[in-house]
Amino acid sequence: MQFAREDAMTKAYELHYWPGIQGRGELVRLALEEAGAPYVDVARGPRGVAALMKRMNAALPAPFAPPFLVAGKLVVAQTANILLYLGPRHGLVPRGDAALYTANQHQLTIGDIVSETHDTHHPIATGLRYEDQKREAKKRAAAFTAERIPKYLGYFERVLGKSGGAYLLGRALSYPDLSLFQVLQGLDYAFPKTTSRVLRESPRLRELRARVAARPRIAKYLVSPRRVSFNENGIFRRYPELEP
Amino acid sequence: MQFAREDAMTKAYELHYWPGIQGRGELVRLALEEAGAPYVDVARGPRGVAALMKRMNAALPAPFAPPFLVAGKLVVAQTANILLYLGPRHGLVPRGDAALYTANQHQLTIGDIVSETHDTHHPIATGLRYEDQKREAKKRAAAFTAERIPKYLGYFERVLGKSGGAYLLGRALSYPDLSLFQVLQGLDYAFPKTTSRVLRESPRLRELRARVAARPRIAKYLVSPRRVSFNENGIFRRYPELEP
Repeated sequence: MQFAREDAMTKAYELHYWPGIQGRGELVRLALEEAGAPYVDVARGPRGVAALMKRMNAALPAPFAPPFLVAGKLVVAQTANILLYLGPRHGLVPRGDAALYTANQHQLTIGDIVSETHDTHHPIATGLRYEDQKREAKKRAAAFTAERIPKYLGYFERVLGKSGGAYLLGRALSYPDLSLFQVLQGLDYAFPKTTSRVLRESPRLRELRARVAARPRIAKYLVSPRRVSFNENGIFRRYPELEP
Repeated sequence: MQFAREDAMTKAYELHYWPGIQGRGELVRLALEEAGAPYVDVARGPRGVAALMKRMNAALPAPFAPPFLVAGKLVVAQTANILLYLGPRHGLVPRGDAALYTANQHQLTIGDIVSETHDTHHPIATGLRYEDQKREAKKRAAAFTAERIPKYLGYFERVLGKSGGAYLLGRALSYPDLSLFQVLQGLDYAFPKTTSRVLRESPRLRELRARVAARPRIAKYLVSPRRVSFNENGIFRRYPELEP
């Protein structure tokens, strides 16, 4: 199977995601920024959330939830799916079908980390406030820091050790590297003790993080107003009581 | 972007997944069965789990977890990724890039349902037994049945209403239909009261379920010894106390 490539869009993409948080939208933003692809972050503009809702409900099929990307006539939702769309179009994955399946596989594992991180502060219900599930959050965060962070980061450290380069797929950056960077930043924000302890023994993850941060477009982006700061409405939240 | 197609494998696929449960492996099995593709369910054979572990650790990159599919030299992990691989090769998705992104998008949303269902009996930690997190499981299951099942199933009922056919992508079956069928069966097993209440108002989901069950290869498979029964080690578990 060949995943053929077309030229990237010349018109700006529309990224639709909730304003005020990085969330899953940030994984898409990092890819768009690294690609130097023109995009409009719709919901951060005036009356942006109304525009997002209108676009979401008009799509066929309507996405289940943001983020979604509008690329000409195409509306693509689900973070890993958006990146599967963008990756080959913008040189964010090596050529060939095997590489794209590997990239997508890593992206889905990274998506699992993101979901599990979310559930550390919302272990009972998305519809409840953190304060109403804090007792359970403490338990879930304890298991997450003790077992899941070391397991996931240890896995990716091993992948890097066998990839033949500094990145997940080898010597060239691909889009899951950008998402893994974001996860490392986010875990370091939310669970700094655990993350720095694990990273002390993970030289390849530290190297990947440094390399991504130093890429010219990413370095510019990270200090630009387009980058939302980590905060306690997003997925990666710093609640000191969750990492005593 | 064109997702080109190649001929399907003539050699049997190897499916690697934990024996004794349906789990996420079942979403792959349903696709292989509907396709009539030859496959070996490795871990269900003699010394199968040892064979699975050996193959998993030999792969580059090693999968984070089963299920994974061995297709010739390729090892593909993550359920939605395996289905992205199989779908176009076996006529389980309409031709064209838009259809494949839509199928993958639905598959990822279905994967989210599966993960949330898992967490109804494991809201605190995968590493703990159900009995050790039963109190929290009751709370999570209450929110899941009150909010999430109606939201997810309502979403897919609307998608079916606008697809132009009886299936998610229109008049032809595609692989997310098989996974949605499995989710409906699983939810009906685990949370029968909620599921039958929601399905009473969801004629299109009922129709999809009946159509998938009646497809000749699926109908044969469901009564074959290859189909593992639902049980309380899997993802969809019937614990009466979780749906009082």
